[in-house]
Amino acid sequence: MPDPHPAGSPPPLPGESPFALSPATRQVVVEGPFRLRAGGALPRVVVAYETWGRPAAGGDNTVLLLTGLSPSAHAASSEADPAPGWWEAMVGPGRPLDTRRWHVVCVNHLGSCFGSTGPASPNPSTGRPYRLDFPELRVEDLARAAREALRALGLRPRVVLGASLGGMAALAYALQFPEELEGLGLISAAARATPFAIALRSLQRELVRADPAWRGGAYPLGRQPVTGLRLARKLGLISYRSAEEWQRRFGRERLPHPPQEPFGPQFQVEAYMERNARRFAKAFDANCYLYLSRAMDLFDAAEHGEGSVEQALARVRARRCLVAGVRTDFLFPLHQQEELAEGLREGGTPVRFAALDSVQGHDAFLVDEARFGPLLRAFLEELA
Amino acid sequence: MPDPHPAGSPPPLPGESPFALSPATRQVVVEGPFRLRAGGALPRVVVAYETWGRPAAGGDNTVLLLTGLSPSAHAASSEADPAPGWWEAMVGPGRPLDTRRWHVVCVNHLGSCFGSTGPASPNPSTGRPYRLDFPELRVEDLARAAREALRALGLRPRVVLGASLGGMAALAYALQFPEELEGLGLISAAARATPFAIALRSLQRELVRADPAWRGGAYPLGRQPVTGLRLARKLGLISYRSAEEWQRRFGRERLPHPPQEPFGPQFQVEAYMERNARRFAKAFDANCYLYLSRAMDLFDAAEHGEGSVEQALARVRARRCLVAGVRTDFLFPLHQQEELAEGLREGGTPVRFAALDSVQGHDAFLVDEARFGPLLRAFLEELA
Repeated sequence: MPDPHPAGSPPPLPGESPFALSPATRQVVVEGPFRLRAGGALPRVVVAYETWGRPAAGGDNTVLLLTGLSPSAHAASSEADPAPGWWEAMVGPGRPLDTRRWHVVCVNHLGSCFGSTGPASPNPSTGRPYRLDFPELRVEDLARAAREALRALGLRPRVVLGASLGGMAALAYALQFPEELEGLGLISAAARATPFAIALRSLQRELVRADPAWRGGAYPLGRQPVTGLRLARKLGLISYRSAEEWQRRFGRERLPHPPQEPFGPQFQVEAYMERNARRFAKAFDANCYLYLSRAMDLFDAAEHGEGSVEQALARVRARRCLVAGVRTDFLFPLHQQEELAEGLREGGTPVRFAALDSVQGHDAFLVDEARFGPLLRAFLEELA
Repeated sequence: MPDPHPAGSPPPLPGESPFALSPATRQVVVEGPFRLRAGGALPRVVVAYETWGRPAAGGDNTVLLLTGLSPSAHAASSEADPAPGWWEAMVGPGRPLDTRRWHVVCVNHLGSCFGSTGPASPNPSTGRPYRLDFPELRVEDLARAAREALRALGLRPRVVLGASLGGMAALAYALQFPEELEGLGLISAAARATPFAIALRSLQRELVRADPAWRGGAYPLGRQPVTGLRLARKLGLISYRSAEEWQRRFGRERLPHPPQEPFGPQFQVEAYMERNARRFAKAFDANCYLYLSRAMDLFDAAEHGEGSVEQALARVRARRCLVAGVRTDFLFPLHQQEELAEGLREGGTPVRFAALDSVQGHDAFLVDEARFGPLLRAFLEELA
């Protein structure tokens, strides 16, 4: 199969990313200045992306896929990179995002650390990482960077689809460019964060900041605050899964050995958290985490509707929306997806709404293929 | 009113407590060795307590009140200390725990730091604080220390009542001494912690341990790991309240001033957490926190029923039980109180069960007087 990505993208820009990229990942430059919603501008923006399937001759089959806070653009395997992606079961030939029909493009968010411009990327004016000189990020900026990247590739997405932060960004896309989309998919998303979600993320950020290795954001790349990130990730995990899942999965099962340090892990659930958090702390930049996490707190769809979420949602002009949530999700609770669905419907947009019984909480979209697969398949078939 | 506490208690033992005690608090010595459930023994145990009302001539009106993880024995004001206690609305003349009828005794848990023996107390064999030389604590030990303290005072409780950790301890009392109680009150309690609750508390303990000021438990009293405790308390708060309460109370209200440090608080909910956590970090000993927190994870009523919670609950011989929980509590979720109520009933104990609609989550028993007051009043009237 020939390289499916459109011509014109520049050679990889390894300086843009402190972490190894998938060999399937490409980068595209959006020439600046790229003005940010909260003020300031970036002289240029690089967006890393990966594609599956081929653009149709008429260019009407592109699906833009927007990720949660931490994934890269590597959503699924391909010839260029056989390693499974973060949505492996969903993207590919014959899969719900069927790449025989659709040209799927997944981008790494602006502000992240997998090939897109972010706080860990070199600041062109100093040659050193931006760190906290990176301007304040909003979810709207993420959506616009993705749109500009696709335009630079000569693509106009027909469908924008995202989960979690990606769902917020998909909504921010539709609110900023309401006439451009035919399909909008909002999964485990919200028009704005609850104070409970804000409290959780605020504490996660504080755990990073409290690590002396953070050094006010000035840590050398490669010597980042892994303890703070590890602890923040544990709290993230607690908020991403559900009590019910952990009851089934771990119960009160003990570890085979007594703890090796005072008050160390004694239960399987503690060891699971430790394993997962260690992996994450090595694989995500601390400052990028802070910027993207705060953007989630600050996003408020009501800003696009004169203070009213309902009015903002009425601006959306998609032909079809999918809104899905999970009953065990307490980070983006179901009433927030109900709010989205009702607001979109009242604004005249047809909505396929699904309240799923997955036990995996907010993360269900990553793992509960049995429930999410058919839903996504049906949504995309409606649009085909 | 003459001093209502029984004669025979020793003079205060200020060395036993790094924090100031209420002037109403007394201490009683339980002569050792006090053998601990997980092994080891304490040469002697001091238990701090406070009382309201008077013991009846027949000695049949004592209610033992057991606290959550962090309160002292100062449950309510009295002549000796007019400062409001942690259950001010519930204890006093005419209040649900009506001290015209009942002699209420609240103890500071073994392992805590408000006058009872714990990791911050002097180890008689060295004269210095026990710190991590304190033996492993179990909830059963807390219950037994309270029982022995009351016996040393010549008291036999007719009713044992507790919430949260106090509810676990009340259950541990009934499981160890099943013939002794007439009334048992279990509020927002559980037969054992869920893996989700274990994960939350494990992370809280890790936040304390990750603070360099913890020094492996060897911090000098007065120079304790306040950052770790502050962060742990924030996570505690998140787990004690509910998303619904915070939505009503804070919504997305911003602070009037921009953050004074990068990624500092911007929302009212963040400032609330900060205020609360700062107070706590100065007022509770870090090692005591670790011991009591872990005891909550390790408690498992099934140990008293050959591996079966149901069999354990069938041992209880109280004349009446109150089991109450709150729909918004996700730390001790309602299905855990249902398990308690069903198990007790199947074992032949009459149970008054209440599933309350409080929005304040696990902490509701501390603040939702309108719902908890009538319930406690009715339960105690049944026993009167």
